[in-house]
Amino acid sequence: MDIAGFTPELLPYFGQAAYFQLGMFENLALAIAIAPDLTAKEALSVAAGRALAKHQGLVAEIRRRGGEPSEVMAPFAPHLDAFREQTAGADWNELLLSCYLAGGLLDDFFIRLSDGLPGDVGPRVAHLLGQDAGTEVLVTHLKAAIGAAPALGSHLALWGRRLVGDTLLVARSALPMEGITAAESRIEPVFTELIAAHTRRMDGLGLTA
Amino acid sequence: MDIAGFTPELLPYFGQAAYFQLGMFENLALAIAIAPDLTAKEALSVAAGRALAKHQGLVAEIRRRGGEPSEVMAPFAPHLDAFREQTAGADWNELLLSCYLAGGLLDDFFIRLSDGLPGDVGPRVAHLLGQDAGTEVLVTHLKAAIGAAPALGSHLALWGRRLVGDTLLVARSALPMEGITAAESRIEPVFTELIAAHTRRMDGLGLTA
Repeated sequence: MDIAGFTPELLPYFGQAAYFQLGMFENLALAIAIAPDLTAKEALSVAAGRALAKHQGLVAEIRRRGGEPSEVMAPFAPHLDAFREQTAGADWNELLLSCYLAGGLLDDFFIRLSDGLPGDVGPRVAHLLGQDAGTEVLVTHLKAAIGAAPALGSHLALWGRRLVGDTLLVARSALPMEGITAAESRIEPVFTELIAAHTRRMDGLGLTA
Repeated sequence: MDIAGFTPELLPYFGQAAYFQLGMFENLALAIAIAPDLTAKEALSVAAGRALAKHQGLVAEIRRRGGEPSEVMAPFAPHLDAFREQTAGADWNELLLSCYLAGGLLDDFFIRLSDGLPGDVGPRVAHLLGQDAGTEVLVTHLKAAIGAAPALGSHLALWGRRLVGDTLLVARSALPMEGITAAESRIEPVFTELIAAHTRRMDGLGLTA
């Protein structure tokens, strides 16, 4: 099922998805830089590598169509940079939760949106973005931290609620306004699904969404 | 020709080389974070991916031998963290030069040291570490910056001279002291070669080594 019969324009789709993955990579690299121990650093480096591989796969799709990646990504930089700044968090736990929740939701979203891409592009992109993000380490660390300090759970639950709002705005911004208005009733269920998957991620951490 | 008949112990060799590549990756990720434009960011992400791939290849060698990567790397963390701090530089240009010069010299060094590893391990590691580091983008940016501001050239030449000293100390620390003393006269030519390659990198940038 494609997203309400919505066909994203190819290069802007790739540009936004590629810049998002680059930002994910940068956030994970920041998490590596402030990791409390070498085991965490090492495990996070796997997740950073996965985000980078997704970014590079999307960049390859841009180049394949004669696009210059930096030019194709540029229109999305101000909005996504602001998003990263808002969601980077004040510490290690908030940053990990951001990487896990925003990364999970927007991977889901761009996979969903890829259904509307022409020919074999959609399945290829869905395969690329659907690969294991290597973020199980984030879950392990967050669960341990929440288990050790229950007050952290309610703090991170609030943080998670704020994150999902900001993240859904990024997803909405990938859809042209007229498309949203015309197809609002058909797009709504897609967002409902994205939120349901988000809630499962929160539940998995023992957080109330 | 192996390095003065010196056989490095396998796990410590991999631990130090793996942690060094992780630090290279972290430096390149920092360079991405402060990159002045999207084109630079994008090109640096390729170099960061290469350093990460080398790190992960070395980590795989540690795992293959039943080692726990974080434990095997841990003894080298304090020294290499201090090295990174000393050589991170005060700005974008200094950081790029560090990545290029220290990365180049220590890639050369660990490749050279791999000659003494048993069986097919040496050639496999040399192949891994000898892969294109994707650092041509660093050269391009540094040459452009030096071309635009000749005073920067003498500033960076000084920085390069400081870097090579610190970097050679890291290389020396990979050799046990008794090995160095016993084989000093045979190891010296290897360091001479490393310095010659460093000088070629400096020359390529138009800097006096």
